[in-house]
Amino acid sequence: MRPSNRRCLLQPIGFVRSSLKRREDCPHGPEGAPDAWLEIAPAFIEGLEGITPGCELIVLTWLHEARRNVLKVHPRGNPDNPLRGVFATRSPDRPNPIGLHRVQVMEIEEPGRIRVRPLEVLDGTPIVDIKPVLRSSD
Amino acid sequence: MRPSNRRCLLQPIGFVRSSLKRREDCPHGPEGAPDAWLEIAPAFIEGLEGITPGCELIVLTWLHEARRNVLKVHPRGNPDNPLRGVFATRSPDRPNPIGLHRVQVMEIEEPGRIRVRPLEVLDGTPIVDIKPVLRSSD
Repeated sequence: MRPSNRRCLLQPIGFVRSSLKRREDCPHGPEGAPDAWLEIAPAFIEGLEGITPGCELIVLTWLHEARRNVLKVHPRGNPDNPLRGVFATRSPDRPNPIGLHRVQVMEIEEPGRIRVRPLEVLDGTPIVDIKPVLRSSD
Repeated sequence: MRPSNRRCLLQPIGFVRSSLKRREDCPHGPEGAPDAWLEIAPAFIEGLEGITPGCELIVLTWLHEARRNVLKVHPRGNPDNPLRGVFATRSPDRPNPIGLHRVQVMEIEEPGRIRVRPLEVLDGTPIVDIKPVLRSSD
């Protein structure tokens, strides 16, 4: 194992800019999510080559306000839904609060600033990875 | 921000068991990937409630043998493919080597031991999250 990989320590490659400022603002589902911007740090911009408007991407984020000691939740935060294991839900509360978001690239405003839709995460959420959607398996 | 979230430090929730023992064994695509087992640590088994045979899951792994200082690659490791930013590819080599794998649950052999297909990662790869596939957005 390479030395830097011994600990599973993520480095943010950038941050989400969004009008969603508080957890209570989030619409609990992709339907009502607004456009958002991926602001990628200069050191990582080279890794974006090949991403163009219209691309579908999977954005992985670090849901920094999540609770990590939760193993069961009421799906969508609705107490009427029976408790379910977090790994069978998309709850942000989970041992490793990685958010997974499928978005479309609307516009590349400048290198490292990408407008995407829909993205339901709080303003300032760290971005940890971006991957293309593969038709065959996604 | 909650104290445990200040650093983006992942804790493995389990490990993949697979017949793929070396990076050279991997088929470079989901087509040839064998069945594999998700072995979830006892502390996290409660979080699996609701996952049943036939479920489609997204498994997130920590690709512990990846190179983290790479921003451009030849897709699929083929030098004939022009260099591309890693965020426009599924290369394991990337700043945060999180693997994303869409699989189907074939069998739950015992609590915490789940047979899935297809999963192209090395034996011993840490699992960091499991999420259900959502039809509407995946």
